[in-house]
Amino acid sequence: MISLSDLKRRIDRGELSPDAALTQSLEAIEAQEKTIGAFVHRAKAPRAAAQGPLRGIAVGIKDIIDTSDLPTEMGSPIYRGWQPRADASVVMMLKRAGATIVGKTTTTAFAALDPTATLNPRNRGHTPGGSSAGSAAAVGAGMIPLAVGTQTGGSVIRPATFCGVAAIKPSYRLLPTVGVKCYSWTLDTVGLFAAGVDDLALALSAITGRPELAEHHFTKPLRIGVVTQDFAGPVEAASDAALRIAASAAERAGAAVRVLKLPDIFAEAWQIHPIIQDSEAHRALAWEYAAHHDEIAPKLRAKMDETAGIAPSAYQEALGITARARAAEAEAFADVDVMLTYSAPGAAPKGLASTGDPRLNRLWTLLGVPCVNVPADVADGGLPVGVQIVARFGEDATALAAARFLENALRSFR
Amino acid sequence: MISLSDLKRRIDRGELSPDAALTQSLEAIEAQEKTIGAFVHRAKAPRAAAQGPLRGIAVGIKDIIDTSDLPTEMGSPIYRGWQPRADASVVMMLKRAGATIVGKTTTTAFAALDPTATLNPRNRGHTPGGSSAGSAAAVGAGMIPLAVGTQTGGSVIRPATFCGVAAIKPSYRLLPTVGVKCYSWTLDTVGLFAAGVDDLALALSAITGRPELAEHHFTKPLRIGVVTQDFAGPVEAASDAALRIAASAAERAGAAVRVLKLPDIFAEAWQIHPIIQDSEAHRALAWEYAAHHDEIAPKLRAKMDETAGIAPSAYQEALGITARARAAEAEAFADVDVMLTYSAPGAAPKGLASTGDPRLNRLWTLLGVPCVNVPADVADGGLPVGVQIVARFGEDATALAAARFLENALRSFR
Repeated sequence: MISLSDLKRRIDRGELSPDAALTQSLEAIEAQEKTIGAFVHRAKAPRAAAQGPLRGIAVGIKDIIDTSDLPTEMGSPIYRGWQPRADASVVMMLKRAGATIVGKTTTTAFAALDPTATLNPRNRGHTPGGSSAGSAAAVGAGMIPLAVGTQTGGSVIRPATFCGVAAIKPSYRLLPTVGVKCYSWTLDTVGLFAAGVDDLALALSAITGRPELAEHHFTKPLRIGVVTQDFAGPVEAASDAALRIAASAAERAGAAVRVLKLPDIFAEAWQIHPIIQDSEAHRALAWEYAAHHDEIAPKLRAKMDETAGIAPSAYQEALGITARARAAEAEAFADVDVMLTYSAPGAAPKGLASTGDPRLNRLWTLLGVPCVNVPADVADGGLPVGVQIVARFGEDATALAAARFLENALRSFR
Repeated sequence: MISLSDLKRRIDRGELSPDAALTQSLEAIEAQEKTIGAFVHRAKAPRAAAQGPLRGIAVGIKDIIDTSDLPTEMGSPIYRGWQPRADASVVMMLKRAGATIVGKTTTTAFAALDPTATLNPRNRGHTPGGSSAGSAAAVGAGMIPLAVGTQTGGSVIRPATFCGVAAIKPSYRLLPTVGVKCYSWTLDTVGLFAAGVDDLALALSAITGRPELAEHHFTKPLRIGVVTQDFAGPVEAASDAALRIAASAAERAGAAVRVLKLPDIFAEAWQIHPIIQDSEAHRALAWEYAAHHDEIAPKLRAKMDETAGIAPSAYQEALGITARARAAEAEAFADVDVMLTYSAPGAAPKGLASTGDPRLNRLWTLLGVPCVNVPADVADGGLPVGVQIVARFGEDATALAAARFLENALRSFR
């Protein structure tokens, strides 16, 4: 994989020109793309910026995110050739930081369920996950050092763990969703993929103009609560091993690790996530559903047909549970700085029929709290398995610092 | 003005066909539009639906709200002729309820500061207010029974009071903002204009599929807290008179009316509203600002030039104050069901140079609480002055019921 922090260090020191850094990515895309299929559209003549903390950094943008100079097709024939007028906020933030948009990455239709043709760069017989398939695969295949995705259920953390890359789903609205095709306004969250945690921290701080996001250091031993999310059902042996190894590595590196019981309201919140997601999708995609029903990808169409009858009162009740769960955050984190939990129920499923299961991600998306996937150095049949660090809402710097701590701990553990 | 509830009653009873109801609006537009100038685009051959609670109801949509079959120009030459692909969520919700979109109404550029050419239907020498100028004026002029607008500062309640129409800025996200051009994602709220409070209640309940929004009744005497928002500066005599008359009328009709002191954090929240609004506008309109700076309307451009340097830390701090103010809602409403306060500092200013001042609206937009403008039967030089009813977040039914109570009380007061 291409390390953003390494590129940036060499560019900042003048050892590497932004042009040369960009060229390295373009050449890697040229070499890898025909087998992986991570891109939908590629910029015709991408150029490196001379200024900005991310100059020379090639970025892929999930194709539900508007770009003013590249089509944005939402993974759907309904938007074939669609050219938005403006860049999405996050695209402009990247450009202002000096990054170069090299292309649009594959997405399941409207960031929902129907798999893309993208292959998992770690094992091409397996899914790269979804819905941000292309962004995870492009980083995992070593084509680009940074990519943007979105998560409504588990669409950032899941493909990241399946492709063995680091990723952050930041606090809700830390990165704006303006210009991002909406599926669920309560849940949709813009996130980032990169080779390692430092790369995420550098990118996120550069994009937001908030250096403190990359500068957090712990002055006391890190307190980690291990969470198994039993309400979400059992996981495979590989995910259990990853969590166990991550906890042991963190403990050996000096963290105070304990098993944590979550407030009961969290299980309720986990349960109602689909009500929020599916109700809002019927509002957000109402035009597509009414005017282009038969062109909607089959799994999404079936899901929407199935959920068309959710009562407004059920949705209201679900919003109430969400508010109560968010209010219980302080209680949940009372004795720990961060939580450590599974990123997915196992490694990437075989084949391309399914993008995997978001059941270990959806609670955190609903809570709006920052999550970082850390590749856990566990492999299941050659496929990577990660774990996620979860912090309080707004404590993205803590989440990143704890993930960096864990990443280092895992490196020296083996 | 055209009464939606009256039309609906006659249509429901079979005394009026949906086609005839629609024709009435189309003829009124034909008669009024050339002097008022409330519309940017009009539907070529609007037809009434045969089904739905709002069949026969003609609706105007503010031109920052996407329509799949009419251009959406954001009040700006940057979007001249721009044709979105999909209908915004609220447009689809209206269509599903049977309403007919008859046209797009004027908006200040990007729903910000620069006045439109629309005239105030009550006195053509005065502004109709902004930013939802066309929506308020079209209802006020008796062209249509229902119109959709948005409020980020005071862009629903202010034009409503200036044009003498009822309006609701519902709880944040009760009406989705999907497909609405974003100015500030924390603040932007979709609202409705109609002739009276009953019309608003019927429309809102039909659009959302939530009958309970139109059915709230008080079983005990209504408790009203009168709020003068001293932190927002002084108001003109007409607004003071309107508030005094509204309070007296409510009291005489049986409400328990008291003067209410707001928690100190509300004054702080009022203060930081512009920091949130202006910071987010720089993200939301980043592409327009970078790629089309000189085409941005002059007042908005000057405002954006002036606010380009707000530090991310100031924005973060403002979000923290917002969260604390929202958490103080229960305390603020502890002894009252609703609040009663000014809708604007006075009647519509003379001329078209300014759309008026949102300083009495911005706190409530930031809090995300429902606000209803009730024309207060006070006129200043022939121009109407309203007051607003404010309820707790999510208690839109209470806000509407209290506004209906006040509307009735004012009718029998004079």
